[in-house]
Amino acid sequence: MSSVRDAFYMAQAISLAKKGRYTTDPNPRVGCVLVRDGEVIGQGWHVKAGQGHAEVEALKNVPDAKGATAYVTLEPCSHQGRTPPCCDALIKAGVSRVVAAMQDPNPQVSGSGLKKLKVAGIEVICGVLQEDALALNRGFIKRMTDSRPFVRSKLAMSLDGRTAMASGESKWITSNEARADVHRLRAESSAILTGINTVLADDPALNARVDGDVLQPVRVVLDTHLNMPVTAQMAKLPGRSLILTCAQDEQKQGALQQVGFEVYQLPCKNGRLDLQAVMDFLGQQQINELLVEAGSVLNGALLDEDWVDEYVIYMAPCILGDQGRGLFNLPGLQQMADKKQLKLRDVRQVGQDLKLTYTPL
Amino acid sequence: MSSVRDAFYMAQAISLAKKGRYTTDPNPRVGCVLVRDGEVIGQGWHVKAGQGHAEVEALKNVPDAKGATAYVTLEPCSHQGRTPPCCDALIKAGVSRVVAAMQDPNPQVSGSGLKKLKVAGIEVICGVLQEDALALNRGFIKRMTDSRPFVRSKLAMSLDGRTAMASGESKWITSNEARADVHRLRAESSAILTGINTVLADDPALNARVDGDVLQPVRVVLDTHLNMPVTAQMAKLPGRSLILTCAQDEQKQGALQQVGFEVYQLPCKNGRLDLQAVMDFLGQQQINELLVEAGSVLNGALLDEDWVDEYVIYMAPCILGDQGRGLFNLPGLQQMADKKQLKLRDVRQVGQDLKLTYTPL
Repeated sequence: MSSVRDAFYMAQAISLAKKGRYTTDPNPRVGCVLVRDGEVIGQGWHVKAGQGHAEVEALKNVPDAKGATAYVTLEPCSHQGRTPPCCDALIKAGVSRVVAAMQDPNPQVSGSGLKKLKVAGIEVICGVLQEDALALNRGFIKRMTDSRPFVRSKLAMSLDGRTAMASGESKWITSNEARADVHRLRAESSAILTGINTVLADDPALNARVDGDVLQPVRVVLDTHLNMPVTAQMAKLPGRSLILTCAQDEQKQGALQQVGFEVYQLPCKNGRLDLQAVMDFLGQQQINELLVEAGSVLNGALLDEDWVDEYVIYMAPCILGDQGRGLFNLPGLQQMADKKQLKLRDVRQVGQDLKLTYTPL
Repeated sequence: MSSVRDAFYMAQAISLAKKGRYTTDPNPRVGCVLVRDGEVIGQGWHVKAGQGHAEVEALKNVPDAKGATAYVTLEPCSHQGRTPPCCDALIKAGVSRVVAAMQDPNPQVSGSGLKKLKVAGIEVICGVLQEDALALNRGFIKRMTDSRPFVRSKLAMSLDGRTAMASGESKWITSNEARADVHRLRAESSAILTGINTVLADDPALNARVDGDVLQPVRVVLDTHLNMPVTAQMAKLPGRSLILTCAQDEQKQGALQQVGFEVYQLPCKNGRLDLQAVMDFLGQQQINELLVEAGSVLNGALLDEDWVDEYVIYMAPCILGDQGRGLFNLPGLQQMADKKQLKLRDVRQVGQDLKLTYTPL
């Protein structure tokens, strides 16, 4: 039986887990609270892959956890990874009860940690604040279940649906506050996806400029014909810069590798990179959350093939006029009956702009 | 001195005034509450031009109003119009105190009603819930002060800023709830303005389809070259249908008048109707609130010349793609520095759509 008290401590564990939101990749964000006799005796969260899991961090400075309840936002692991299994640590510490928010999303190991704890005589409860725990690790969960990343497309537009002037000029449509919010989105992402035309037009850095420790997102550029200039600034920045291409130009590829790019050849479909292959590849690269920051052609193709799990749209209170650039190039969409229907999930104000969150139906 | 009690009764008077929101044109919406010894002894509102003003309605069934306080949302009139002056009625009834929300907006008579009451020995207070009273009659006030209507443009668009497919197909982008809300907007409006191209494409009725009594808004079509077909359905519907044109084609004009249109010749500017002349004309026609329901050309021109006081935008959670039609045709807007800046005033959900209200800075 779970209680309001269980939800109370689980909420604390979820808050702890969020402290790892910029740094745990490719691992999930996990928090843990140890409670005995109504007192929190230990707490921890997973900070970084290769470092201690949340349960181990919580136990670290607790001389005696006998009879305590451990609240964990994710089922404790039962397998030996880069660190020893957390189940063993909890059993050894003598906790008498484990409350988990959700099972391990990996269908092949899901439930085995909880089972191991039960076999050791520990009372086990699972599912407390499960929705919140799912929201914490949507990318990790998607990759574990579908072998592909959770895809979020970020768009910044005027009130009349324009992302730039006809000339391409786009600095700036949205407010400082909205752009700072985008940097937080980037910091939470495992990778940022864009198209070569955006790189050629803007030479973007695509890095996360936020305070505190950040594991910089991997930059991924779709570049069918390998048109990336060796002078692109992103190659010089900390973190990985990947070019995905259909072209086989060894000389150009070598030059790009020389300046710091990783270049991968992927299958082509209808004259451009096969998006299915791109998503599979990014899953293999352990990308949990993919942030799309692209122009209307790539966004149109992703929408048309239903690859996007969430749209985050910053809408500025300004008008650019119908000569400006649109959000989605959808040449196949000719009739109202074929319109792409989404569902509004959230509205909030960020600076003078609106931040709108939509998901597919 | 005004008190919380005064605000309490004034709020009731404002609620009463709102009952006239579909019917008082060209008069303002006004409500009145009579209070004595903490008891409401009478209440009334202005229903329709030519019928009793709010004060007279409130006094109607009160045998004795001596010593009462009258709460009115607008300064009582002191002049003989189609009905006798309300000031005289209040004085005659023996009220000892008059609380008004705002002065008469007509600068030529503003204050004279309150003065007349004071001279008669009545205690007079003005300005209680003034903001709410101003919001009640923005059109009437604008016409009294500027001799032109308050202009509200209503737009219905997809998430990506499209009002129709490239073909012109636009049924329906927004939800039933949003379209019902538009009918309430129409019912509150004195007139609906559109362009001839919208009429040629859609043959719209431009009437207010709501429950209860409605003074149907005047339909106004800008038709520079007098291209209106005599078969247009709006001419057959109850209420006035006006064509404003630069053309002098007596035969065509006669044919249109035959089927029920009123045709007016207005000055031309740069090959199309002069919007200044249009607004002046509509002010002369006693139009308080003008609702624009037009395509991107007329909306672009109105925006460019700063004629719009408020934008009401219904945004549906769907995507139509960048071949769809835009909101504002602004050929002169080429640089980000020239973008049109608005201010977000209100966000609410209507059905599955967002209703967004913006005003110029």
